[in-house]
Order: sequence, then C-alpha cells, then structure tokens
Amino acid sequence: MSITVVGSVGLDTVETPSGKNEEGLGGAAVYFSLAAANLTQVNLVAIVGDDFPEAHVALLESKNINLDGLEKAEGKTFRWTGKYHDDVNERDTLDTQLNVFADFHPKVPEAARTAPYLFLGNIHPSLQLEVLDQAKSGFVGLDTMNLWIDITLDDLKAVLKRVNCLIINDGEAKQLTGQLNLRDAATDIQAMGPDIVVIKKGEHGCMLFGADGEIFAIPAFPLEEVKDPTGAGDSFAGGFMGYIATQDATDFDTLRQAVVYGSAMASFTCEAFGPDALATVDKGKLETRYTAFRQLTNF
Amino acid sequence: MSITVVGSVGLDTVETPSGKNEEGLGGAAVYFSLAAANLTQVNLVAIVGDDFPEAHVALLESKNINLDGLEKAEGKTFRWTGKYHDDVNERDTLDTQLNVFADFHPKVPEAARTAPYLFLGNIHPSLQLEVLDQAKSGFVGLDTMNLWIDITLDDLKAVLKRVNCLIINDGEAKQLTGQLNLRDAATDIQAMGPDIVVIKKGEHGCMLFGADGEIFAIPAFPLEEVKDPTGAGDSFAGGFMGYIATQDATDFDTLRQAVVYGSAMASFTCEAFGPDALATVDKGKLETRYTAFRQLTNF
Repeated sequence: MSITVVGSVGLDTVETPSGKNEEGLGGAAVYFSLAAANLTQVNLVAIVGDDFPEAHVALLESKNINLDGLEKAEGKTFRWTGKYHDDVNERDTLDTQLNVFADFHPKVPEAARTAPYLFLGNIHPSLQLEVLDQAKSGFVGLDTMNLWIDITLDDLKAVLKRVNCLIINDGEAKQLTGQLNLRDAATDIQAMGPDIVVIKKGEHGCMLFGADGEIFAIPAFPLEEVKDPTGAGDSFAGGFMGYIATQDATDFDTLRQAVVYGSAMASFTCEAFGPDALATVDKGKLETRYTAFRQLTNF
Repeated sequence: MSITVVGSVGLDTVETPSGKNEEGLGGAAVYFSLAAANLTQVNLVAIVGDDFPEAHVALLESKNINLDGLEKAEGKTFRWTGKYHDDVNERDTLDTQLNVFADFHPKVPEAARTAPYLFLGNIHPSLQLEVLDQAKSGFVGLDTMNLWIDITLDDLKAVLKRVNCLIINDGEAKQLTGQLNLRDAATDIQAMGPDIVVIKKGEHGCMLFGADGEIFAIPAFPLEEVKDPTGAGDSFAGGFMGYIATQDATDFDTLRQAVVYGSAMASFTCEAFGPDALATVDKGKLETRYTAFRQLTNF
C-alpha cells in the first residue's frame, strides 16, 4: 500500500564532532521518504524555493518517490543550521530560516489523498489539520515537537483526536502529559486519541505501546561512530510507517517488526552526514541490519 | 557453584516520591546476596556494628546466605541517607557515615575463599586487592564507582588487571575511559583487563560486551511505578553473577541470559522500598519476569 508524507524539505548546515556539511539535503519529509521508499511507494507533499538544487529532486525521483505534491515557490528554500556537542546526543539550533515554508499550505494531489497510509510530519498542527481535511487515508501517523506543545496545544489536541499513531521523543512525551514514567505518558497520550504510541529515546532505543496495553522495547543499534544523527527520528518514522504500509496490517506483531525496521533506518542515517547513508540503503542492507538487531537483542 | 561477595552492609534512610524508609536494611552486598541467593549458594563477607538488628541477620540466614564472613565489630553500622528527585533516575546523597566500615579489612573465611565465583562489591580498590590476595576463585566480577576513579585510579587499574568481568554504570564507564561512545568505552575497559564488560544504563537497560566483540543489549523492565531504585544495580550484579555461577559457564549465550536474570532482579528491587520486594522473589516469580522480558523484547 502507498503512503503519503507531509513535512519539511530543506537545506541543512550541520556540524558534528565528525565534520561539517554545508547546505545539504535535509528536512523531515526527505528522511521519512527515503526510508519508507525502501519498503513501499511514497508520495511526498512539501514546498521548496526556486533555489532547490535539481540534483536533490533527481535523487528523490531515483527512489520512485512521487513528487507531484512537491510545490516549487518563488523564493528561498527552508534552511536549518545546527551544531552537535561532543556528546552527539545533544545539539544546538544555530539558525532557522522558514523562507517559502512560512506561507506553506499543503495541497495534496489526488493520488496522495487516497493513499491508504498518511504521515503528518512535524509542521504546525493547523497545517496538519488542513492535510487531514484533504486526505482519505485509513491510517494516520503523527509527529510533533516541543514548540507546538508550548504554543498551540489546542490545535495539536485536535490533531491527536484524528490520528491512529503518535511517534514522539521521550522529552516531548513527558512535556505533553506531565508524566515522568513513560508508561503513564503513553497511557495519557492514548486517551488523547491515538491507539498506538511510539516513544523514541535516541541512543537508548525506543518503546512501542499498543491499544491493549502491550509494550515492546528495543535498544538503539550500537554504532561504532555516530557521524550525524540529524533525521534519525524521521528515518525511524519512515521505516516504521513504510513497513506497516507494505504489510497493510497493524496487529502488535507487525508493529514490533515495524519498530525494528524503523530503528534500522535510524541507524543507517547516523552513519553519514545528511541522508547520504540512508540514500544507499537497499533491501539487502536492510535485511542484514534487521538480522543484526535480532542478534543484538535475542536471548 | 557457590559465589562469594564482599561489600557493604548498612542501614539506609531513603526518601523517594513514593515515601520514606528510615534505617532500613541496605548495602550493596545485601542486594547482591538476596538476588544471587535465588540462583545459587552465597557467602557474604562484610562488617556491621553492634547495633545491626538481629531481624536483618535472620532474613539473610533464611535465604541460606552463609554469614560466616559477616564480621560484627564494636561501634555503629554503616549508614547512608539519600533523597530521590521527582524523576527517580536522579538522587542526592544527603549523608554517609562509614562507622565500623572505616576500619574494615575483609577477612574471607576458608569456604568463601574457595568459592569458584567471587564478586568484589563497590569498596576501596585496596580492599578489593586484599580480597583477591585471599581468594582462590576462578571467575571474578567487579563493581566500582566514580569516587575510586577520581581518587585511587592506580589501585583500581591494578584490580582491573585481575578480574574477568566489570559491571559498571554508563557514566562511570565514560569517566574511566574518557570515551563518549559506550562501544569504545567497553573496548578500552577490556584492554585494562576484564574480558567481559556490562554497562548499566538505569531506566534505559544495559549492554553486555563479550571477549570476541559480541554485543547484547536489553531495555529495562517498564514498571508501572518505581518506588525505590536503591540497590537495583547491586541486584542486577547478583542476578547476573548468580546465574553464571549456577550454570558454571561464561559463553556468550549464558552471559546474555545472565543479563536478563540480572535485569529481572533489578526490576523487582525497584518495586518496593529497600530489599522488601527482592526478598520475596522466588523461582516462580523469577521465571515469570524472565518470560515477561522475552515478551517485551521479542520480534
């Protein structure tokens, strides 16, 4: 089954202890799409400026990602600049330029509207609501961030009522619910709408909470070197949602496997700057990493 | 096979968001012994003062823990007072009174010396060396802490050369090696002596590193409520070493299972104040929790 993703496409300038990458391809929807495209057909809905390099478009097209929903507007593409600490689990945002993204109102093409699976990347909840009003998907996944929890909680709660799954990091889950225990946080989030909650914990892996109280937990893949974690969470979401879409199932065993595919995608992303490593993933590499996760966790 | 543990026995005053426990039974060697005693025969080597309650001695004896090495000295028992934050992964030590522990020199009885397995609890490395000079064990596990890494690193390095396994938390592993990546930290620790390194990450579970580069990782058990995490790490060590001793094997598959038994013991400890929950564990509860870990992590 196909999947539609709405979110940011941009140019990232990133510095980590391993080096620096100037104005590379970035944005949550890019990482999501590249990860999911290994598993299923993806429709990307986003906006870029007239300075967006053709080579990036060509890369996405080479992965059979449908770009009918990629609007090209006059002006500059969204840009983000960040610097990671020596401990790459910590980072500072140095600059954010919304540019054409500031006036973005997602226009979802017909094929993308009818995709059975939809992922609402981390954009303003009011835009996520606009997408929900256009879409006819049966299963909707959602990402959000601390900023929206802070400044537009009512809109976010309206979105939460209409989605099946929230994929969120641990700090955000605690902020959204006021709970310190992640089990309690997941229960509270489920009461807000989504049956399925995935809480990402960065280097510590992630936890999956099902509709009937089921819990699954997995460590992160212990990489020899984390070169650039930018987009790891979005890659996780792409692997997770992509696997659900390709199986067209949301029973808990499928969800467990989806978490492993998501974790595998996140681990690839960390191995190089930007989406460089993620873009070279193929079915063989993916199955090898899946098996390595089994080896890592099996007893 | 039997196991000998040397470490602290004391009286703990602990406050957590769930309540307060005044002068309860505590000390690393107590948690270790109670956990390991579910799996194998334990010899406890420690010191207490003449104020140490008989009821605590009776509890340890009821678990068939050999107390021939529990020295009773004139004076007061070791005391520790701590307060946990609302986030129970953080705590402050409010008071430490060494009392009779200040002049402790472990005297290991003959039966304890010849136990095939030995665990050196977190005491001054020079005392750990005294124990090593008395013991004839074939396999030695070690714990330590930030204080000894700070003030007596040479003694600690001398101990590390003589042990088979280090069980340490993530912050200490980073401090000991200067490495931020736990894989690198484990490799550096292995170069200091121990073939096997276990890095505990509290609420995030733990990682096991084998002699041939093998890695195993497991999340912590997601408890509904963490009432008091005091002694969880020592309980982990007791379950881990106890399982190795009862299997009398250190191949990597056995070590993986030992990590699960250790994690199970740690989870029980967190369920009540002091060792109250740990002391009620039996083989049935242990196997149920082991199965729950499989359910939590299997895909």
